Amino acid sequence: MDYTTIRYDVEEDGLLLLTLNRPDKLNAFTVEMCGELIDAYNRASMDDAVRVIVVTGEGRAFCAGMDLSVGGNVFGLDEAMAPTMDDLRTAPDDPAVLKGVRDTGGRVTLAMYNCRKPIVGAVNGVAVGIGSTMLLPMDFRFASEKARFGFVFGRLGITMEACSSFFLPRIVGVEQALEWAYKADIFDAIEAQEKGLVRAVLPADALLDEAKAFARSLVKDRSPVSIALIRQMINRNGAQATPWEAHLTESLAVFYTSMADGREGVRAFNEKRPAQFTGKASQMPPFFPWYDEHQ
Amino acid sequence: MDYTTIRYDVEEDGLLLLTLNRPDKLNAFTVEMCGELIDAYNRASMDDAVRVIVVTGEGRAFCAGMDLSVGGNVFGLDEAMAPTMDDLRTAPDDPAVLKGVRDTGGRVTLAMYNCRKPIVGAVNGVAVGIGSTMLLPMDFRFASEKARFGFVFGRLGITMEACSSFFLPRIVGVEQALEWAYKADIFDAIEAQEKGLVRAVLPADALLDEAKAFARSLVKDRSPVSIALIRQMINRNGAQATPWEAHLTESLAVFYTSMADGREGVRAFNEKRPAQFTGKASQMPPFFPWYDEHQ
Amino acid sequence: MDYTTIRYDVEEDGLLLLTLNRPDKLNAFTVEMCGELIDAYNRASMDDAVRVIVVTGEGRAFCAGMDLSVGGNVFGLDEAMAPTMDDLRTAPDDPAVLKGVRDTGGRVTLAMYNCRKPIVGAVNGVAVGIGSTMLLPMDFRFASEKARFGFVFGRLGITMEACSSFFLPRIVGVEQALEWAYKADIFDAIEAQEKGLVRAVLPADALLDEAKAFARSLVKDRSPVSIALIRQMINRNGAQATPWEAHLTESLAVFYTSMADGREGVRAFNEKRPAQFTGKASQMPPFFPWYDEHQ
Repeated sequence: MDYTTIRYDVEEDGLLLLTLNRPDKLNAFTVEMCGELIDAYNRASMDDAVRVIVVTGEGRAFCAGMDLSVGGNVFGLDEAMAPTMDDLRTAPDDPAVLKGVRDTGGRVTLAMYNCRKPIVGAVNGVAVGIGSTMLLPMDFRFASEKARFGFVFGRLGITMEACSSFFLPRIVGVEQALEWAYKADIFDAIEAQEKGLVRAVLPADALLDEAKAFARSLVKDRSPVSIALIRQMINRNGAQATPWEAHLTESLAVFYTSMADGREGVRAFNEKRPAQFTGKASQMPPFFPWYDEHQ
Repeated sequence: MDYTTIRYDVEEDGLLLLTLNRPDKLNAFTVEMCGELIDAYNRASMDDAVRVIVVTGEGRAFCAGMDLSVGGNVFGLDEAMAPTMDDLRTAPDDPAVLKGVRDTGGRVTLAMYNCRKPIVGAVNGVAVGIGSTMLLPMDFRFASEKARFGFVFGRLGITMEACSSFFLPRIVGVEQALEWAYKADIFDAIEAQEKGLVRAVLPADALLDEAKAFARSLVKDRSPVSIALIRQMINRNGAQATPWEAHLTESLAVFYTSMADGREGVRAFNEKRPAQFTGKASQMPPFFPWYDEHQ
Repeated sequence: MDYTTIRYDVEEDGLLLLTLNRPDKLNAFTVEMCGELIDAYNRASMDDAVRVIVVTGEGRAFCAGMDLSVGGNVFGLDEAMAPTMDDLRTAPDDPAVLKGVRDTGGRVTLAMYNCRKPIVGAVNGVAVGIGSTMLLPMDFRFASEKARFGFVFGRLGITMEACSSFFLPRIVGVEQALEWAYKADIFDAIEAQEKGLVRAVLPADALLDEAKAFARSLVKDRSPVSIALIRQMINRNGAQATPWEAHLTESLAVFYTSMADGREGVRAFNEKRPAQFTGKASQMPPFFPWYDEHQ
């Protein structure tokens, strides 16, 4: 797939730099960008040359939100339909439902949630609407001091999207999520850091280098299989109602990794040398994925 | 319904001031107050003249807890019964179960949880037992410097109620919830703020005005349909095991609002003017509620 | 059961001091220690002489992790098997699954999760791998200034265990859990406190006394039945998708305790005297446990 709204650049040490690339439109989100981002995250998941992903925006914005200047239903929805919850549950991939009903932002964030590689955000400027909500399934978020955020849906008479009603309260708590969503204001990087939305606010010219260095530090000398399992286990098991699902998946994960990269890891530990892992995220243990990848 | 234990006053800008009104009893909670609060929250949910709710107490207390001076089972329970989990699951609205077994505090907080309007607490004084636990399903909590709190059930040999075993760990974390519940001590507004139970501690004479101004700021120039959806989506989807439920409900919510208040919202945005929303919380999109309102 | 890897000492006021006791091996975890810890937590649960548990390590370490110096599969797993999620779900207690597949750390932390008594950690030194993850289901964690922590599985090419993929993100958030798990570094007690893993960092010679005093303060003059119910309700209901399960369990818990220790509690409150509770955690109300104790 050739991309026209994003760039996909694999750099040294397995770092994929994913760049939103419509700078003349402040990288505003479109249905086309939705498709390209889903493709890129799925491709990175299976590409063993990619170990970790950094996401940023070209030019002065990160992403100014959905492009509201397009004609027809600006969200790309098919207004002739009358969908129900039952329609979505039973046939989420029916083409009419997939293209005419399902939230484009959510389709992107579900692909990010399912990704086998850690995702680090480098928010270089304005990140509003889907620009803010596509940050939430990332593992880590860094902001430039020029970054601006806003969950502005309430101001437009619409609602949360991109699975942000799941992700946002889990990151900043129910109360802060409600406040940002009700008020629908734009806020700066300092507030984002104070409330836990981003981990650090950096000078604009240091942002990308620091985000990249951090990203590389996560995966250097680590097993890609172990990293992929840890990402899915923490994201998924931490939201379960009891520890039982964690116990089942951890049992199988330790079982299968202990006979693969774990064997080398223990040997290297006992021999006091760095481990040489050979596992690949494209070839996961037989119980993976243990979940419905829709979900 | 005429209220004898509370007051229901709709003020300008759609602000409902709900006042616990047994000042000579420090607004202690009774079975009668339970019924009146449920009625008031359900009524406010469907009353389009109400946009946001502020809750406070008359006199020097917010609510001193269950009135333990009444005769018989002080919690209003029917001691002749021998209920099981199965009884509650299969027939929660059987009159004998509803009146003789189900926790009165929980019936109130479930009505608050299901409410279509944001709820802001103005805790003017002592808030102990159900006085503390009825604060938890509120969206936002302000406290006077005279406020006192206490999850004192353990001291009485009973347990958490009013769904506080769900709400409290979600607000302050499992560890703090366990500490307050085990110790069962009274604590002051500063501790409540430091631990995240209240968002601000205010001078007693500024409390109500500040809580009201904050409440009005949440809903001014906003779509009541959008606000109601955001409230239910953040509260409910943030507690799901995966983002999938969020994706389904968000897809339908954006779909239907984009053809109603969202159309005006986008048009107003493009025309750089304030939006004039006409949606009503009493008339929600066809997929609403997507959940069992018991739950 | 006689213990060879731990000590089980019941002290005054119902305090059980549980000590990891392989000081010459830095209390490294073995399959034998797994069995003894499960036995000890289950025994403490049913032993009415035990009101609260403090856990510490003998000598200079708390627990240096799984003992990686043993022969064969160092995790004690049966490499001849090829287990699936279905195997674990349908027959978790099949001896071959229980001994050859299921994570030993998780079997311990599930016993801790199900325990009827509060658990307080006194982390006296190095706590790495299972040494860190066995802290997570504790109610409260104190650390000596000499304590060190590390979720080091990634470094070994394996994954989270001991249900830490459930517990850790619930305690410190998804982002911090991912960071510690990906990086797999050792960190000190100050970082553990700043990130919310431990509640206090104490001088080494004050640690155990302070942890014991805190533990005793939780249960003094409290009903053991009420304490056991509060522990299970906050841990379990706080992770449910809605408040409904909390309402059901709280209704039954208040119902049955109000006719037992709650009656004495209310009477003592009205008579302004300390309550004399007679309930026992070994004899819980009829609806207990309302959950599958596997989970």
